[in-house]
Amino acid sequence: MSSAAKTLELLAHFSSARPEIGLSTLCRLARRDKATTYRHLQALEDAGFVEQNPATKHYRLGPIVLQLAQTREETVPRKAGAEAALSRLADATGETSHVSVLSGTTVYPLASCESPKHGTRAIIDIQTFPLHATASGLCALAFGPSKLMDVATENLQAYTAKTVQTAADLEQAVQSARDTGFGRSDRSYENEIHSLSVPVFDQTGLFAGAVSVASVATRFSQDLERIIKSNLVSASREISHNWGGTPPADIEAAWAKSLSPSHASETAS
Amino acid sequence: MSSAAKTLELLAHFSSARPEIGLSTLCRLARRDKATTYRHLQALEDAGFVEQNPATKHYRLGPIVLQLAQTREETVPRKAGAEAALSRLADATGETSHVSVLSGTTVYPLASCESPKHGTRAIIDIQTFPLHATASGLCALAFGPSKLMDVATENLQAYTAKTVQTAADLEQAVQSARDTGFGRSDRSYENEIHSLSVPVFDQTGLFAGAVSVASVATRFSQDLERIIKSNLVSASREISHNWGGTPPADIEAAWAKSLSPSHASETAS
Repeated sequence: MSSAAKTLELLAHFSSARPEIGLSTLCRLARRDKATTYRHLQALEDAGFVEQNPATKHYRLGPIVLQLAQTREETVPRKAGAEAALSRLADATGETSHVSVLSGTTVYPLASCESPKHGTRAIIDIQTFPLHATASGLCALAFGPSKLMDVATENLQAYTAKTVQTAADLEQAVQSARDTGFGRSDRSYENEIHSLSVPVFDQTGLFAGAVSVASVATRFSQDLERIIKSNLVSASREISHNWGGTPPADIEAAWAKSLSPSHASETAS
Repeated sequence: MSSAAKTLELLAHFSSARPEIGLSTLCRLARRDKATTYRHLQALEDAGFVEQNPATKHYRLGPIVLQLAQTREETVPRKAGAEAALSRLADATGETSHVSVLSGTTVYPLASCESPKHGTRAIIDIQTFPLHATASGLCALAFGPSKLMDVATENLQAYTAKTVQTAADLEQAVQSARDTGFGRSDRSYENEIHSLSVPVFDQTGLFAGAVSVASVATRFSQDLERIIKSNLVSASREISHNWGGTPPADIEAAWAKSLSPSHASETAS
């Protein structure tokens, strides 16, 4: 590994759980001797990537990272960071792909992309995604902050005959999203739409939004479901990456199980 | 310069004005040959600091900087990034120091620190700083977004006999803040308070807030003004640094002129 790579690697040891690190601890974490570690820290400090806390002399991340993040956010903002993935998702599925973001306790649409494959298409023109009635909303309930569940159960408005109407039914739909890694709305918000969603994560490591495919329900099939699910997983990984995050291991595991051939045949049987 | 330092230096070429850079351009900007620059970019790319735009193959900042900024923000949040400077400012002046932040078109208090030197002290217990009547507000008008001036002139509420009451007088007070680099409220918000303020900048390069000293007006003097002003300048530099920014050159120049001995004697004469 080059000296530059070793230097950059030191930054990965700083986290919310370990925001300040003393030289000896850093040597131990990086498994390097004091002279080498100190030399690497000097390069990082000179460039503003770390600074010493004047009170403790421990190292912490420096202010230059705020400027770099600002430039990155201007270069690849949330919407731009989702668009290429949405376009591929619409192409691969022939249906409408879209991404939503959670702000406070509300799920808002951010961007959508229709496929030209069919004459009938789902159009995403709503102001917010009701938590209990949409695939995006169920993803937020399953993978977002727990307070969302209280907000959802306070308003179980019926949009269709299939909208969940009790707290118990909602809990079951959310648990199913947690178990499989996919939120599903089968005509529960609009009579003609069958939607599947997966969560997207950002630099906080927390749920940031959902990426979804809204299919015209009359052409939804098991084959289409398989195609949508595997492409949703790729889209979530890509958008999460662009937003500075990664899908957590437990969600990757749920997806892997949902997408395995044995699981698919079980479902089909 | 070490290889690590040269590698880190490449990141400084990315900015809002130049968010994506091709290899040849980067070689020219960094004044290095293609093989070296490519090797440095590889180290940055492996660590997530840069990535190639799949469409153009040009390099841009990578998503890891979002995670680092998040950790930095948790480690040294705005308030924590101001507290040490406020404490030194209160000690050096014997008066109350405080920092305010601009959000939208409103200036809010963020943190304050009283000095134990005197029995009478300014207490910062207001909800927002009126733009036209306070030193922090005048800093926002002088160095913040231009739309603030419209908001301010719509509400010229009189707090004391010395509050500015006309758009022309307000324009003059704002121009004086621009010329000197200091906002001043001489009993214009409260009858007993004489305040001086300087702007603080963050990672956006824009006005983020103000750091101020609120003195008990009866003990304000030319000597105290000199002490407050020079310590305010240090405090602004320190807080701006912690917030990822730097005071711009024209403001540093205005401060230098205000603090020069010749200027002081002119004022005194």
